[in-house]
Amino acid sequence: MTDERYSKLDMLGADARAADRPEEARLERVENPSQDADYMIRFACPEFTSICPVTGQPDFAHLVIDYAPAQWIVESKSLKLYLQSFRNHGAFHEACTMMIGQRLVDEIQPKWLRIGGYWYPRGGIPIDVFGQWGEAPKGLWIPDQGVPSYRGRG
Amino acid sequence: MTDERYSKLDMLGADARAADRPEEARLERVENPSQDADYMIRFACPEFTSICPVTGQPDFAHLVIDYAPAQWIVESKSLKLYLQSFRNHGAFHEACTMMIGQRLVDEIQPKWLRIGGYWYPRGGIPIDVFGQWGEAPKGLWIPDQGVPSYRGRG
Amino acid sequence: MTDERYSKLDMLGADARAADRPEEARLERVENPSQDADYMIRFACPEFTSICPVTGQPDFAHLVIDYAPAQWIVESKSLKLYLQSFRNHGAFHEACTMMIGQRLVDEIQPKWLRIGGYWYPRGGIPIDVFGQWGEAPKGLWIPDQGVPSYRGRG
Amino acid sequence: MTDERYSKLDMLGADARAADRPEEARLERVENPSQDADYMIRFACPEFTSICPVTGQPDFAHLVIDYAPAQWIVESKSLKLYLQSFRNHGAFHEACTMMIGQRLVDEIQPKWLRIGGYWYPRGGIPIDVFGQWGEAPKGLWIPDQGVPSYRGRG
Amino acid sequence: MTDERYSKLDMLGADARAADRPEEARLERVENPSQDADYMIRFACPEFTSICPVTGQPDFAHLVIDYAPAQWIVESKSLKLYLQSFRNHGAFHEACTMMIGQRLVDEIQPKWLRIGGYWYPRGGIPIDVFGQWGEAPKGLWIPDQGVPSYRGRG
Amino acid sequence: MTDERYSKLDMLGADARAADRPEEARLERVENPSQDADYMIRFACPEFTSICPVTGQPDFAHLVIDYAPAQWIVESKSLKLYLQSFRNHGAFHEACTMMIGQRLVDEIQPKWLRIGGYWYPRGGIPIDVFGQWGEAPKGLWIPDQGVPSYRGRG
Amino acid sequence: MTDERYSKLDMLGADARAADRPEEARLERVENPSQDADYMIRFACPEFTSICPVTGQPDFAHLVIDYAPAQWIVESKSLKLYLQSFRNHGAFHEACTMMIGQRLVDEIQPKWLRIGGYWYPRGGIPIDVFGQWGEAPKGLWIPDQGVPSYRGRG
Amino acid sequence: MTDERYSKLDMLGADARAADRPEEARLERVENPSQDADYMIRFACPEFTSICPVTGQPDFAHLVIDYAPAQWIVESKSLKLYLQSFRNHGAFHEACTMMIGQRLVDEIQPKWLRIGGYWYPRGGIPIDVFGQWGEAPKGLWIPDQGVPSYRGRG
Amino acid sequence: MTDERYSKLDMLGADARAADRPEEARLERVENPSQDADYMIRFACPEFTSICPVTGQPDFAHLVIDYAPAQWIVESKSLKLYLQSFRNHGAFHEACTMMIGQRLVDEIQPKWLRIGGYWYPRGGIPIDVFGQWGEAPKGLWIPDQGVPSYRGRG
Amino acid sequence: MTDERYSKLDMLGADARAADRPEEARLERVENPSQDADYMIRFACPEFTSICPVTGQPDFAHLVIDYAPAQWIVESKSLKLYLQSFRNHGAFHEACTMMIGQRLVDEIQPKWLRIGGYWYPRGGIPIDVFGQWGEAPKGLWIPDQGVPSYRGRG
Ligand SMILES: [Ca+2]
Ligand SMILES: [Ca+2]
Ligand SMILES: [Ca+2]
Ligand SMILES: [Ca+2]
Ligand SMILES: [Ca+2]
Ligand SMILES: [Ca+2]
Ligand SMILES: [Ca+2]
Ligand SMILES: [Ca+2]
Ligand SMILES: [Ca+2]
Ligand SMILES: [Ca+2]
Ligand SMILES: [Ca+2]
Ligand SMILES: [Ca+2]
Ligand SMILES: [Ca+2]
Ligand SMILES: [Ca+2]
Ligand SMILES: [Ca+2]
Ligand SMILES: [Ca+2]
Repeated sequence: MTDERYSKLDMLGADARAADRPEEARLERVENPSQDADYMIRFACPEFTSICPVTGQPDFAHLVIDYAPAQWIVESKSLKLYLQSFRNHGAFHEACTMMIGQRLVDEIQPKWLRIGGYWYPRGGIPIDVFGQWGEAPKGLWIPDQGVPSYRGRG
Repeated sequence: MTDERYSKLDMLGADARAADRPEEARLERVENPSQDADYMIRFACPEFTSICPVTGQPDFAHLVIDYAPAQWIVESKSLKLYLQSFRNHGAFHEACTMMIGQRLVDEIQPKWLRIGGYWYPRGGIPIDVFGQWGEAPKGLWIPDQGVPSYRGRG
Repeated sequence: MTDERYSKLDMLGADARAADRPEEARLERVENPSQDADYMIRFACPEFTSICPVTGQPDFAHLVIDYAPAQWIVESKSLKLYLQSFRNHGAFHEACTMMIGQRLVDEIQPKWLRIGGYWYPRGGIPIDVFGQWGEAPKGLWIPDQGVPSYRGRG
Repeated sequence: MTDERYSKLDMLGADARAADRPEEARLERVENPSQDADYMIRFACPEFTSICPVTGQPDFAHLVIDYAPAQWIVESKSLKLYLQSFRNHGAFHEACTMMIGQRLVDEIQPKWLRIGGYWYPRGGIPIDVFGQWGEAPKGLWIPDQGVPSYRGRG
Repeated sequence: MTDERYSKLDMLGADARAADRPEEARLERVENPSQDADYMIRFACPEFTSICPVTGQPDFAHLVIDYAPAQWIVESKSLKLYLQSFRNHGAFHEACTMMIGQRLVDEIQPKWLRIGGYWYPRGGIPIDVFGQWGEAPKGLWIPDQGVPSYRGRG
Repeated sequence: MTDERYSKLDMLGADARAADRPEEARLERVENPSQDADYMIRFACPEFTSICPVTGQPDFAHLVIDYAPAQWIVESKSLKLYLQSFRNHGAFHEACTMMIGQRLVDEIQPKWLRIGGYWYPRGGIPIDVFGQWGEAPKGLWIPDQGVPSYRGRG
Repeated sequence: MTDERYSKLDMLGADARAADRPEEARLERVENPSQDADYMIRFACPEFTSICPVTGQPDFAHLVIDYAPAQWIVESKSLKLYLQSFRNHGAFHEACTMMIGQRLVDEIQPKWLRIGGYWYPRGGIPIDVFGQWGEAPKGLWIPDQGVPSYRGRG
Repeated sequence: MTDERYSKLDMLGADARAADRPEEARLERVENPSQDADYMIRFACPEFTSICPVTGQPDFAHLVIDYAPAQWIVESKSLKLYLQSFRNHGAFHEACTMMIGQRLVDEIQPKWLRIGGYWYPRGGIPIDVFGQWGEAPKGLWIPDQGVPSYRGRG
Repeated sequence: MTDERYSKLDMLGADARAADRPEEARLERVENPSQDADYMIRFACPEFTSICPVTGQPDFAHLVIDYAPAQWIVESKSLKLYLQSFRNHGAFHEACTMMIGQRLVDEIQPKWLRIGGYWYPRGGIPIDVFGQWGEAPKGLWIPDQGVPSYRGRG
Repeated sequence: MTDERYSKLDMLGADARAADRPEEARLERVENPSQDADYMIRFACPEFTSICPVTGQPDFAHLVIDYAPAQWIVESKSLKLYLQSFRNHGAFHEACTMMIGQRLVDEIQPKWLRIGGYWYPRGGIPIDVFGQWGEAPKGLWIPDQGVPSYRGRG
């Protein structure tokens, strides 16, 4: 059942480990199987953690990535490993979220991409970061990410 | 439409202000209008704030108070003012929650009382405190307080 | 399709109006069609309003009534009209809720009855009243009333 | 893939129609495949309608049926057709709900059965009926039916 | 009560089985009964499963299909059987979702069609695919599909 | 308290019955009390049932109707009776939904009207139909109908 | 802490009572403190009741009012009293909702105003009314009112 | 980081495939790491499908399994493969659910086990099956499974 | 792991206290790490309290702040302390919300900023204030704030 | 505002870092301020991550800890740091959850303690672990933890 298109992938189906740093992580891509179409792909990534560059303590986020592929689509196992490589990476919420979006843009050169970073509260105040690259193809269907607003208690 | 029973209340319908400290706040009570019955009264108090005794920063909580009245019921405006008197009071979550329950018990001597304190997160971890005084009358109807669990993000 | 049992009802299917005061309102009852069984009947009444005896301003409540019928069941249209008769009635939340439960108990003499009164907030604090009459028949199925807890905002 | 046990069923997999009246409807049963066990089966039936015996207008209900089978289990297609046979049947909410429970008890003689009838509002007040037959086997697992409480608007 | 328009359908009301492969499955269509109108039809299909082409393990998805019919509408039983024919079909999430949308477009030539594929998580990350064909008629009413975002736990 | 405008209504406040067939049902209308304004009226109709023209079995739907009145508004009791007249009417989901919208358009000639038909699942797949007549007045406020998406189980 | 701007208000902080009829009720206004800005103010009013002009029975609604202030903003206590003055007022849902919006427009001459009236069900069908006055300033931020759709039961 | 205890497992971390039939599937177990404690383990399995023995069409279910381990705990990858082996298995909802519970009991001999099978609707009616084996250790903490009740539409 | 950019911050990581009055509070800013991009940052602030200028009683609000940074981003700890400085500040809901937005605009000169103030109910009616400064960059991604509407009870 | 009781705490209010391994982490405790009472304290900890001992990949969990204090209560900052020390710790879900509960029991010797570990899905199946130590004091108030069940998609 395998497919020519995937024969060059190194990580999918193999026992890959995450890189130590995002800069060393490899993101893999495969040919977009529907290159004629303007469509959208969404990844929801609730398992993300990095390090606060000031306090050295762990931060957590729920990330959602949307993109309209051009020639390439992201191979999802390499995406998982890429995100894991932030485990010891120190960066502020804004910088960390934008860095992930930029890296994906560089690797797969989509028609358009956006990333929502929904960070866990610090000092009672959660920060969300909403970054976007390129212009969405005219008429692209882009549903809301629908991550619930933070309510505190009660 | 007023009622003999309430004629001695000082705060209800008047322009009362909260005391500066909980110790100075006056809680008023009125005769329980249904002294034959074992029933339960619930107050939901989402507007509560006090001070962290270590950092001096404000804390916030959603409080829910349940009790089975004996001779007295709490006059709710005085309850509001009592809770407001914690605005500059420094105490840990556990101590603050229990202190409120104890004061109510002392003032209105209910058959039974409980208080749920649902505190806003600090360090990413919210604390809930569930205190109880006396034994609930046999067969008393005690619905869950139903305050949603803390979910973080996602 | 009508039924002997209902032929004496005055209000059902007729153009009845609510009484001016609860004391004047008539509650009708019909024979319990399942007198062998211990079962429970629930009325949810989100359209209730009365008057605050101190301020003269309207109060609102969502009421839920549960009971296990003995010989009689409540005719629901007369219940609706009975509840409407509180429109100009002044009473505190606790007294008003218990008065309704007591009246139903007097009229239909159920094996057991309870009423949950979920009042709209005053001074930022809503009051719920949970009253109960008699002992529930052993093994009676009594689901939670499931009215959401008050959350304030956020 | 068929099974001896089902070879006598008339309705399952056939083009059966509902009876005109509940009294004429046939309920089919099959051997309980797990007669050693005390377990519970739940049917959720959100598509139920009957007739108000006083006004002649249609009533609607969401029904949930729970039972602990003894020798027999209910064949679900015949249950569907049985419930459809109430389409022109006139009965009050309480009587209609209890009649369905009683019929099931008569047909399949379960160890225990209960039915929750969650009726659509009339006069602004929905009625729920909670009937039960027999005593649940000791330790039987009986989850709440979890039908949301009626909220009115807002 | 049957209707000329449906007399040529082979699957509806018959004992049809799903094809072994999507390529062999037949989709049936009937005349659009409202050809003058620009309106939208939605199918929600929470029972979908296919095979991962790399690991050979089952994948699951919740699909929602929206379209504006031109001359034809999809016969829903044949849609069900078409979707069932993917049970042993190996394809990635993106390709599988787009293939279903394309096939429907080929068969019923709608004015416009879109499909949302909401796949169950793999490696902790669910993928959603949002494909679209044609341009929606001006002013067409297109409600959100409203499938909840993936939240992980908590 | 009655009003000239309503004096010619036959059904409101009277003991009207539903017609046997939609074609025979009478829809009543009253003068739009705010003819200067472009505003929207919504009816939510969760109590709707008709007959499947192929299988003869009952279908159920939740309908929501939105319109911007011109000279007339729909009298709601006659709407209720009109919808009841589908109880023995056989039609497919698409045709039935559009027929109701068309009839309302013919009777009250609104500036614009739409109807959402949210049908209960058949074969595991619910169908929703979204029909619309006319062009909404520029700037009309049209909130989403907000009927939850079908989720299957889990 | 008081403020020049409010010194002429009669009702705020005083023991005001509602008028007997909406026509007699006084709405107070204060200077808009941010006259340079195009912003929106929302009032949610879940405690509203009036009278059905045909049956004389009470109606209930949840109202939400949104407006973009020009020179004036509504003083909220006078709004509360104005809404209370409908307690004995007979009017249909459509007329009553639009009358409230019109009165506010007349009194505070906002740049734009809208009112959503979400009425409790009658005859199983709730009516919502969505009225609007003026044109919203370009780019004004107008969040959905987010009142849940009526679901019946189940 | 591996652990002696897991060295004999064949499936975990390997490229295992599901068996063709449940009878051929192997379930693996590992030593319970906390044998002194009475605790509960829950698996939620929303990806389950089998075959209807009468119609040959696929069925879907959401399963939740709770147990109190004695000497063994279930290895979760082998559980996943075991559940996959039902993909071509024909059985009724009741029988299929109980068969899974029984097999787990046979393999890991827990102190107590229960399984909730929440099946997708057929004929508009979903069936839930709640089976249980053994007696829960005194005081065991057993949270509700919390799977939402089926609501139909609206 | 610290970063040149943050070396001049006084409050972050230090034992800072809130100012006594908003006018005295210092807001700190850091260089926007992604100045090429048009992106949005959101702060959710459920822990806000100020004083009613007429009654002297505490008010509570849930605030959500969205902005598109130009050269600067807000340092979040200084934001927390700034909001705390309103603890003894008297202002009406409208004025208080707009004042916070204006101050942020003055300090960080964003491309665009908005603030939603969701205030707890007074007199049974909560007020929401939606203020906005500047024009959002073309194509900026601005998700709804998603704060639930106020429902009262039931 | 500080308090004698806390003067010996090393971590609270200081710049503490998490230990490298759970075995090295120090948990601090303070005197229970309400030693006469049987009450419950709950910590919700949605920011937890450890390592899978077989695959070496990160695992995530939402933890909720409930206990009835005897002489000591847990200092919450040290709890946060203790949980962070699992960041590089390899253990299965069951073992990891029980290890945390046991450590807390050893350190603060509560009257009773329980921990719910709600792990993110692996292989499409999330595992929950519910451990408990000691016997809850008679009549202790123990609300459900209320963590939503895992729903997959749809
Ligand atoms: Ca925090
Ligand atoms: Ca809150
Ligand atoms: Ca925190
Ligand atoms: Ca989470
Ligand atoms: Ca209030
Ligand atoms: Ca009604
Ligand atoms: Ca996964
Ligand atoms: Ca179905
Ligand atoms: Ca599902
Ligand atoms: Ca109704
Ligand atoms: Ca429904
Ligand atoms: Ca079905
Ligand atoms: Ca209020
Ligand atoms: Ca209030
Ligand atoms: Ca309400
Ligand atoms: Ca998984």
